[in-house]
Amino acid sequence: MTRIPFDLMKSTIKQAFLNAGMPEAKADICAQIHTESSRDGVYSHGLNRVERFVDYIGKGWVDVHAEPSLENSLSNIEIYNGNLGPGILNALFAMNRATEIAAKHGLGMVSLNNTTHWMRGGAYGWQAAGKGFAAICWTNTESCMPVWGGKSEAIGNNPFIMAVPRKEGHVVLDMAMSQYSYGKLQVTRLKDQKLPYPGGFDQEGNLTDNPGEIELTRRILPMGYWKGSGFAVMLDLFSALLSGGLTTAKIDKAGLGSCGSCCQVFIAIDPLRFNSGEFVEQAIADTIAQIKLSEMAEGVNEIYYPGEQSLKTRAENLKSGIPVNDGVWAKVMELATIG
Amino acid sequence: MTRIPFDLMKSTIKQAFLNAGMPEAKADICAQIHTESSRDGVYSHGLNRVERFVDYIGKGWVDVHAEPSLENSLSNIEIYNGNLGPGILNALFAMNRATEIAAKHGLGMVSLNNTTHWMRGGAYGWQAAGKGFAAICWTNTESCMPVWGGKSEAIGNNPFIMAVPRKEGHVVLDMAMSQYSYGKLQVTRLKDQKLPYPGGFDQEGNLTDNPGEIELTRRILPMGYWKGSGFAVMLDLFSALLSGGLTTAKIDKAGLGSCGSCCQVFIAIDPLRFNSGEFVEQAIADTIAQIKLSEMAEGVNEIYYPGEQSLKTRAENLKSGIPVNDGVWAKVMELATIG
Repeated sequence: MTRIPFDLMKSTIKQAFLNAGMPEAKADICAQIHTESSRDGVYSHGLNRVERFVDYIGKGWVDVHAEPSLENSLSNIEIYNGNLGPGILNALFAMNRATEIAAKHGLGMVSLNNTTHWMRGGAYGWQAAGKGFAAICWTNTESCMPVWGGKSEAIGNNPFIMAVPRKEGHVVLDMAMSQYSYGKLQVTRLKDQKLPYPGGFDQEGNLTDNPGEIELTRRILPMGYWKGSGFAVMLDLFSALLSGGLTTAKIDKAGLGSCGSCCQVFIAIDPLRFNSGEFVEQAIADTIAQIKLSEMAEGVNEIYYPGEQSLKTRAENLKSGIPVNDGVWAKVMELATIG
Repeated sequence: MTRIPFDLMKSTIKQAFLNAGMPEAKADICAQIHTESSRDGVYSHGLNRVERFVDYIGKGWVDVHAEPSLENSLSNIEIYNGNLGPGILNALFAMNRATEIAAKHGLGMVSLNNTTHWMRGGAYGWQAAGKGFAAICWTNTESCMPVWGGKSEAIGNNPFIMAVPRKEGHVVLDMAMSQYSYGKLQVTRLKDQKLPYPGGFDQEGNLTDNPGEIELTRRILPMGYWKGSGFAVMLDLFSALLSGGLTTAKIDKAGLGSCGSCCQVFIAIDPLRFNSGEFVEQAIADTIAQIKLSEMAEGVNEIYYPGEQSLKTRAENLKSGIPVNDGVWAKVMELATIG
């Protein structure tokens, strides 16, 4: 397996973005986030997503020069138009603004309409936690999953993130509403393996753990069946209502690619405005201890708190280099050398 | 099947609560909410929960005279001590206060520490939506589910609710973090049926759809496997950090029964402070239309938006009476006649 050092990956991605017309400072930040995503094991939205992002710039679906503009503010809430700027930059801006407001008011909420794909949603949870804030954020997407009871794609997989800051490692949940991503289906199929649990429906309408059959029907399973389906619908509605942006149904019609003109909500909370540092540390420590001291299930060697596996992967990839698919890496190097 | 008219059920429950020592106005409200839960099909936390609630009063785990007291306020946030008062009354108070704050600031957040079981969490979503507010609320609970990778009960099933107001019927998601409740396992076992999908682990550590085997191991499955497990952990942490209350780990040690001294968060949003009524209606209508127009899966006759099935059950139960288990109804009538 080829492994690439962090700095080389970042500078290569940055050059690809510069070649696509991004201003230097923006290219640097976007390359940093894409590389961090791969570093933490979220390859699908790290290096693997660079080519598509560059393609979107070329199509005019992402405006590399656009900046978010304030549309409305209300108490500790601000609403911005993302102006189809790079989703990563808009989201970093929005979460940062939410933490600034939270520092003043305890809680800050910033919503974005008309933004573009934020890549790895967890990035903004880690961002807030890194500044000492707890955070909740989510995005809507185009239709990519059937609603519960349906066969055709009708709802988004609307990633949802919650983060709590902690000295010894932040606690970060980053989950989409589908049980598995299409990226996971593809990787599993290419290895000729089955999914650990059923991940969608085959052509007869039966649940299956065969990833190739699900790729054919495009009937991926919402996590928790009807529960993830309902949650996806609510996240979509809240995204639009809090930002004045497009629902999934309208994103489908916008014709701006995956997440083109989507909307997002960022909530930051300063836990120290609510309780003492001691209380916060103890509550988190008690919870992690209770998880870790569980009697382990058959075949399990360690129980992880949310985000812990990302930290393990991060340490491993920083030490040994970030694993890449050779074809993907060659393509990004090509994008970095043209121009 | 015995069916009881709404008014008779409510007055019977109310008398049971009066006999248990509740003041009249409080008994009336609690009886209303328990009856509404059964009316909407949430039997487990409606009539079926009356006996246990009365038992908790007798044990001193619920103080029928206690009122929530303000501990802290901060911008559009208020934190109350629930003083172990009836969970329903504390939660109604908190959500109502959140809507009052939202009317002024767009968003209001009220958290409660040291409260007791709120029964059906959806009640507070319907409450907010009934006043024209969107809402998000959740509670933590005692340990009742293994964390992903564990066998022993370590995390709560922490119900999570999202609601959006809509003239033709509010959109309300009310979900616990377990795929099925213990109530559902029991009902399914008593009918000698299998669960529709695996709901937990058997004694060999295999997933099973046999409810009795799961009741034996007490290894119920988090919705979406690791996803619901992680979400439950985060909801617990946010409950405690936003309210200054007990985490699941500490509720386990409090010895005050199910949800004794738990904590809860109530967020209300006035959608009309964010967008025009027309925008809000259109966004919801588009989303529901997109769901409803899905190609239907095999054997499905109708696709529902979140909350729609509750409305159907409500209409049916108001017309024909609320179905009851004869033993449960006899017990509540007994509680209503003693005294």
